[in-house]
Amino acid sequence: MAKKVLIVYAHQSSGSFNAAAKNIAVEVLTAQGCTVEVSDLYAMGFKATATAEDIKGDLKDAENFCYLDESKLAWEQGRLSDDVTKEQSKLTEADLVIFQFPMYWFSVPGILKGWFDRVLTNGFAFLQEKPYGLETFKDKKAMLSFTTGSPESMFCTIGINGDINVTLWPLQNGILHYCGFQLLAPEVFWAPALAAAGDRKNMLESWRTRLQGLLEEEPLSFTPLDCFDKETFQMKHEHVSEEFGLSVGIHLSKPQLSRSQMKD
Amino acid sequence: MAKKVLIVYAHQSSGSFNAAAKNIAVEVLTAQGCTVEVSDLYAMGFKATATAEDIKGDLKDAENFCYLDESKLAWEQGRLSDDVTKEQSKLTEADLVIFQFPMYWFSVPGILKGWFDRVLTNGFAFLQEKPYGLETFKDKKAMLSFTTGSPESMFCTIGINGDINVTLWPLQNGILHYCGFQLLAPEVFWAPALAAAGDRKNMLESWRTRLQGLLEEEPLSFTPLDCFDKETFQMKHEHVSEEFGLSVGIHLSKPQLSRSQMKD
Repeated sequence: MAKKVLIVYAHQSSGSFNAAAKNIAVEVLTAQGCTVEVSDLYAMGFKATATAEDIKGDLKDAENFCYLDESKLAWEQGRLSDDVTKEQSKLTEADLVIFQFPMYWFSVPGILKGWFDRVLTNGFAFLQEKPYGLETFKDKKAMLSFTTGSPESMFCTIGINGDINVTLWPLQNGILHYCGFQLLAPEVFWAPALAAAGDRKNMLESWRTRLQGLLEEEPLSFTPLDCFDKETFQMKHEHVSEEFGLSVGIHLSKPQLSRSQMKD
Repeated sequence: MAKKVLIVYAHQSSGSFNAAAKNIAVEVLTAQGCTVEVSDLYAMGFKATATAEDIKGDLKDAENFCYLDESKLAWEQGRLSDDVTKEQSKLTEADLVIFQFPMYWFSVPGILKGWFDRVLTNGFAFLQEKPYGLETFKDKKAMLSFTTGSPESMFCTIGINGDINVTLWPLQNGILHYCGFQLLAPEVFWAPALAAAGDRKNMLESWRTRLQGLLEEEPLSFTPLDCFDKETFQMKHEHVSEEFGLSVGIHLSKPQLSRSQMKD
């Protein structure tokens, strides 16, 4: 059956490298018979702030407004704002979601962060009392596709930015895996603004080639949920290896980090 | 001399735990003789999206709009929008900046991400060609103060969320250290929404106590810039320990991570 793809796209300019990457994805996936929908966040003027305006009708507790609770209730009762509801419908339909954006400050741009904050509603995309465990999205794939400002050398293990895995952890584990998506490896376009025209073209051609087989790719692996205690969400003793320990980490089976960025 | 403090505050409700934490900071720091300014982002209706509207007058290249370049030029020529310029003036004045927010999706809420994207302009807060090396903010201190949804046990080394250091790395290293702030240890309010009233009160009292001595705290340490090669921004050979390697990492002197979240 024909697959449905949602591209959540966050660049201001149709002349940008990100636009080119998005256009190639639309072209290749459409040619494969997929139905491709694009949420062009800047063009839509997408609201990036989580406010009471996202909820129609009365609030449960206006004095002590809590977005997490109010948006959950509004979702249950069909009272979320139309723009949020529309994005949620697109997500519900999608078999694959591609987030295409320029990395801003080691994360997504504010407009895309706002999309995550507002569209991935408690109850719809996750359940706070069942972290990583809501299965609504379990048959969906998702991936990050982005440009960086820094070259790859700065994001390697001896680079000053630290390993790119660490930078991606809050997005890949914290948002997408938390919501239960099957995660495809990210497509990283390293500093296209610093690259020669030929190199930029090669990056896009490589993306075009990957897209041909994207729907058949195996997702990245994360430590299975049942390796964690159901109450504490800590790794069960039998899975903790003293040799490898924990961190980004548990899931990468790599050694434990100290807390020296928490305390002096 | 009396210190100037800027609190960048991102919660919708004056009845929230975050509001209480912000109010205590204002109270204690003011009582110490500090001048305290609060940027209440939701109350200000702060724009969270980086768009061409942030720039007054003509764009250098409207067809291929690049926010990084256009905002740099506009900053140099005094053509940034008034709301951005106003926040930059507050930053310039401040000796200490406290970011007070509820953690949304393992990061800051969209409205605060928008503040970082728009206010920390290329040229003003950093120089792309001199990463981590612009010294404009070198005498300023900054810190994150935030509430979580998950309890601490989920953010410890064996917790399913991974070590909190990893989650904070893009914010603490990627934004604040990159801009050259001296970074104070974060104040983490673990899941106050799940806590008993007495425990919530204790968390706030502990914050009040810390605030008394906050201005005298030693900042967290990061690997000095001169341990990295000036061209590649990779750690110089003499500083790379095979035993400890790199990661979140380099700076924590902890072991190397594989790239298994990058490739299947």
